[in-house]
Amino acid sequence: MNTWGRIFRVTTWGESHGPATGVVIDGCPAGLRITQEDIQKDLNRRRPGQSDVTTPRSEKDTAEILSGIYEDKTLGTPISIVIRNEDVDSHTYDELRHVPRPGHADYTFHAKYGWRDHRGGGRASARETAARVAAGAVAKELLAHHSVRVLGHVVEIHGIQSKFVFESPEDLLLAERSIVRCCDAAASDEMVACVERMKKTGDSVGGIAEIVAFNVPAGVGEPVFGKLDAELAKALMSIGAVKAVEIGVGFQSARLTGTEMNDPFTATGGRIKTKTNKAGGILGGISTGAPIICRIAVKPTPSVGGRQTSVDLETLEEVDLSVSGRHDPCILPRIVPVAEAMVALVLADLMIQGGFIHPVRV
Amino acid sequence: MNTWGRIFRVTTWGESHGPATGVVIDGCPAGLRITQEDIQKDLNRRRPGQSDVTTPRSEKDTAEILSGIYEDKTLGTPISIVIRNEDVDSHTYDELRHVPRPGHADYTFHAKYGWRDHRGGGRASARETAARVAAGAVAKELLAHHSVRVLGHVVEIHGIQSKFVFESPEDLLLAERSIVRCCDAAASDEMVACVERMKKTGDSVGGIAEIVAFNVPAGVGEPVFGKLDAELAKALMSIGAVKAVEIGVGFQSARLTGTEMNDPFTATGGRIKTKTNKAGGILGGISTGAPIICRIAVKPTPSVGGRQTSVDLETLEEVDLSVSGRHDPCILPRIVPVAEAMVALVLADLMIQGGFIHPVRV
Amino acid sequence: MNTWGRIFRVTTWGESHGPATGVVIDGCPAGLRITQEDIQKDLNRRRPGQSDVTTPRSEKDTAEILSGIYEDKTLGTPISIVIRNEDVDSHTYDELRHVPRPGHADYTFHAKYGWRDHRGGGRASARETAARVAAGAVAKELLAHHSVRVLGHVVEIHGIQSKFVFESPEDLLLAERSIVRCCDAAASDEMVACVERMKKTGDSVGGIAEIVAFNVPAGVGEPVFGKLDAELAKALMSIGAVKAVEIGVGFQSARLTGTEMNDPFTATGGRIKTKTNKAGGILGGISTGAPIICRIAVKPTPSVGGRQTSVDLETLEEVDLSVSGRHDPCILPRIVPVAEAMVALVLADLMIQGGFIHPVRV
Amino acid sequence: MNTWGRIFRVTTWGESHGPATGVVIDGCPAGLRITQEDIQKDLNRRRPGQSDVTTPRSEKDTAEILSGIYEDKTLGTPISIVIRNEDVDSHTYDELRHVPRPGHADYTFHAKYGWRDHRGGGRASARETAARVAAGAVAKELLAHHSVRVLGHVVEIHGIQSKFVFESPEDLLLAERSIVRCCDAAASDEMVACVERMKKTGDSVGGIAEIVAFNVPAGVGEPVFGKLDAELAKALMSIGAVKAVEIGVGFQSARLTGTEMNDPFTATGGRIKTKTNKAGGILGGISTGAPIICRIAVKPTPSVGGRQTSVDLETLEEVDLSVSGRHDPCILPRIVPVAEAMVALVLADLMIQGGFIHPVRV
Repeated sequence: MNTWGRIFRVTTWGESHGPATGVVIDGCPAGLRITQEDIQKDLNRRRPGQSDVTTPRSEKDTAEILSGIYEDKTLGTPISIVIRNEDVDSHTYDELRHVPRPGHADYTFHAKYGWRDHRGGGRASARETAARVAAGAVAKELLAHHSVRVLGHVVEIHGIQSKFVFESPEDLLLAERSIVRCCDAAASDEMVACVERMKKTGDSVGGIAEIVAFNVPAGVGEPVFGKLDAELAKALMSIGAVKAVEIGVGFQSARLTGTEMNDPFTATGGRIKTKTNKAGGILGGISTGAPIICRIAVKPTPSVGGRQTSVDLETLEEVDLSVSGRHDPCILPRIVPVAEAMVALVLADLMIQGGFIHPVRV
Repeated sequence: MNTWGRIFRVTTWGESHGPATGVVIDGCPAGLRITQEDIQKDLNRRRPGQSDVTTPRSEKDTAEILSGIYEDKTLGTPISIVIRNEDVDSHTYDELRHVPRPGHADYTFHAKYGWRDHRGGGRASARETAARVAAGAVAKELLAHHSVRVLGHVVEIHGIQSKFVFESPEDLLLAERSIVRCCDAAASDEMVACVERMKKTGDSVGGIAEIVAFNVPAGVGEPVFGKLDAELAKALMSIGAVKAVEIGVGFQSARLTGTEMNDPFTATGGRIKTKTNKAGGILGGISTGAPIICRIAVKPTPSVGGRQTSVDLETLEEVDLSVSGRHDPCILPRIVPVAEAMVALVLADLMIQGGFIHPVRV
Repeated sequence: MNTWGRIFRVTTWGESHGPATGVVIDGCPAGLRITQEDIQKDLNRRRPGQSDVTTPRSEKDTAEILSGIYEDKTLGTPISIVIRNEDVDSHTYDELRHVPRPGHADYTFHAKYGWRDHRGGGRASARETAARVAAGAVAKELLAHHSVRVLGHVVEIHGIQSKFVFESPEDLLLAERSIVRCCDAAASDEMVACVERMKKTGDSVGGIAEIVAFNVPAGVGEPVFGKLDAELAKALMSIGAVKAVEIGVGFQSARLTGTEMNDPFTATGGRIKTKTNKAGGILGGISTGAPIICRIAVKPTPSVGGRQTSVDLETLEEVDLSVSGRHDPCILPRIVPVAEAMVALVLADLMIQGGFIHPVRV
Repeated sequence: MNTWGRIFRVTTWGESHGPATGVVIDGCPAGLRITQEDIQKDLNRRRPGQSDVTTPRSEKDTAEILSGIYEDKTLGTPISIVIRNEDVDSHTYDELRHVPRPGHADYTFHAKYGWRDHRGGGRASARETAARVAAGAVAKELLAHHSVRVLGHVVEIHGIQSKFVFESPEDLLLAERSIVRCCDAAASDEMVACVERMKKTGDSVGGIAEIVAFNVPAGVGEPVFGKLDAELAKALMSIGAVKAVEIGVGFQSARLTGTEMNDPFTATGGRIKTKTNKAGGILGGISTGAPIICRIAVKPTPSVGGRQTSVDLETLEEVDLSVSGRHDPCILPRIVPVAEAMVALVLADLMIQGGFIHPVRV
């Protein structure tokens, strides 16, 4: 199932070491102004090799638009975007043809399909997320046209926590000044040091990212199974390294009483609001008008340098495995634009479903 | 969006204080033996009034099967199940017509639809989950026919943690001996005491439940957007009170290194397995063959007895609100069968999609 | 696949001789005024036993609304409607358990599912269309709220052709004065005589019905695969007895030249229109603003009284079969409301998809 | 809605005069042997400029495979195919920016989207069908792996009828020897003469094509709304120029009695069959095991040379229009591979849904 969405629908394709990866976006309303640069901007934030703490695989990741946009305006027809794979070095993967890497999808793809492109993880490679980011850039433009902004930042790496508290969307733009995308400068320095240390030892670390959507109107989300938080959970959990998703105070809510958890209502300027936002902007699966807040737990990259135990798929004997290749010691900085993209895709789709965005023309 | 699933498809309907609630299950293969009792059994586990720590609303919740089963075997046609609403006392809700309860979906339904059935939460009531449980019972029978079992238990209430460690499916059946569905007898006693205390003060508490699926074969799950963990996250987050979902070690993975997190592979008896199961039985969105483990954070029931601040939807003035009615001081014990049902629905659908269950006949 | 539609979604269920048949309508906007009578009205037009030329099976076909409507207004939540099966006489079907009736779905259901409810055709019975008509009645109310009307009439039975030419929606209401739903009184008399003759000999006849949708605005329909005519073709062909569908001049277009076929454009009162309507109101799968015109070829009811050759499913030996039971000698008059319902379902769904009807509230 | 199918899912994209057109095929099982040549073969049958009776627009229509196939075997991941647009001459379309061509989708796209790529019909161009043919070629390979063959031929052009009667799949291969794809050599000659006459006068003609699927097992098709004939009707009607679809004897069934129409059952070699095949291989929406037979009525190409009446979209004044450019005087020969592709897509999807083809690996 390589398609996301009911109305604003996104289909991604491509293997890590094949000729290209790409996406078809169907259901974007006509008349939206969008240029190659709008898409490239976010691809650059996800691009490998953007700093010392990411993989040195060097890809320009240039988005080529093949349909759906004419004279810089969307046509309402499918937008096809292709991103060529360039810095592909497949022969380092030769020994992985028969030996699945622990923590990767090698074994499960083998179990499912029987036949796979083992080079660089094939379809299960994080490279697949480039296509999501391209689609997310289109979704973001559509949302921006309706005043909605989606912004992410890193709030924890390997236990080092950001103390940053945001008030407005602009605050979160600070994340772009940090190579680990953390708004708290002191924590950011510590995180960078931690990641560089891991890089040297050949190990990797995980962390937590937070994505916030501002100006989502009250009333977005489809009960019962299409709840806004349910869609967000699926969207974010569909990113390879994510192992947990929480909305608002999330796991903390399990320890509060009802009196502590409930956000009281008030009204200012003729508009109903909650006084606090422990719910993370969602009640009964529908937006309240407060910022939508979600956090994801990201596991450490499974590609680590040391010796690991695996099994030869043909002989079924245990073997020792050392994964070489070029990998991220910490995926957090690069996962932020991917998670933003997924949140944007959810919101674009649900705002159309909810009648907040016209399905055919902006 | 009141339908779940691509192939094994479930559509629920019904308002809390309307004549009935129910479900249509489409895509269940033909020839599966299933009786009214199989469905009733799980409905009884979800039923209000089953113990002193649940709401006193007294419903028999009798499942009436109207189609899809002939001579106790499924026909492959839609299975329609109706559950009549019986102990309905609507007039206690009169004052809620214009005043949304904090923490409930009253305001967001108003914001979305403009017009709603305010009695007992209408469609947003937890009563809706009775239909899910009925559908889940059918899914469980289908899974059981293929040796898969889905079992849940409560692992935390208001900070009180179960120390129970399971080894086999049978272990988890212990939960049914505890009225809070906790397998650790000592923790169970503490939890019961805590919930009874809350009941007296009119407040409520949240907690954490864990659902485990045993004997799921390797290879279940649809990359990229239909990952097993993504579907589970959506399914579980679609339950009203759930604010977070984690798979395997979940949030803890954010603090591990890659070396600590990876589950090494081994082979025993000609079958590949992981030596540990930090991944919770899922890699790259596809099952590994190990038990599937998910946990949900459940917020305290928003219906609390004390005075709360809200707003009159017509005058937009702040008002004081005291919610009367009959409510659960802790929803955890009753959420277990609901969460099991959702996991069963996900697995039934994905095992058909993956070719592990024949789509037309068992 | 017992669900129709993407946004306005209809799921039907029920076997001919089970306890009931019914439908769940999901995605109808909130705030639409609708009563039990609105639904019953169309059910009565489809009801068996309504005249001498239909089956004597006597069903009141009473629609019971179980959810989704509160104080006579839709809630935006699923509308569940149940129709009890009453005049069920199953024992006449005993010999059909092992012998498939020619022209019926008995054999193909057996081939597909292995296990079936053979009584009265089970799920494949025309009884299933009662649920469609109930759903269609809701769709028609939604369309009427947006000035769109869907009306059908019989244009041919066993070669006897109606000469009636309509100009306005009101003209087609004439059909309701004829027990074969033909607007041409002379042809109607001939048709009735023909059907009564067939009834006596125990044979059956087919014919052609035409469905017209008035006031559909220009711009309805989703290219490429969701074209308005494609959806109509599927919807109409999904009715059991339909063997062909045509739009506008249909088959006749195969014999015209481009110059003859093209409808020239003109503009009156600031609105673009076509001068003729050979296209049947659809160009490139999108409505032009002219009436949408479709015709269906309906095969004769396969239940005929004479001796037929079939095969025993267990012994695989040829057997002689005489079908008893109560059947329609001509299904045309009763198929009109069913076909109208299907056209209404298509239009409701596509008008929401096209932004002509708000998806959440009227 | 640019996606076809539930499990075997095809998404097409591309405008006639944009950089390229293409398709993403999701849900093709892994392990199927398929080469670029398998796809190119069918594209060549649809290619413009293949004979004197088709448009002189000269496109090589080379299929470039960008993903989903590794070492000539499908991976079970999305297959992305791109076809570059080459012989594009857009300036002849300049005057059509504001004047819709009669019989084309120019006006309806304008009415729907407000903004369109007017060059060569943009997304509504028949060029879009190249992507369908590429996808259909993949579906055909999957079907061939399961012994199913889909073949088409032209049975009528402008009233000239083929007298050809087929007995086996091989018979229909004769169509490839005729430039109008008609198996009856004498009729073919007449048809060619007719089309050439039209070409000279600048007019166009329509006709009828028949598509047959051989060796489809009994039991394919999803009641109630996913009937095999319903899906075929939608698939075929979604082709631009098609105005009618019939199954088996189709419209003729309206004039038969039940006794004449019913196909009696018999059994030979332990297999149940129908003695005749008036039903076209489908009963109750499910295949009987007999050949699936469908016919489509194709309207004459709307691009004709003479003067036509249209309206300026800005001034709303009537204008005279002469369409220049390079067009097919008769689309029938080139529509055959497109219709075959659509039938193949329907069958591939429904055979997977029915459990006849494994959804994950061949």
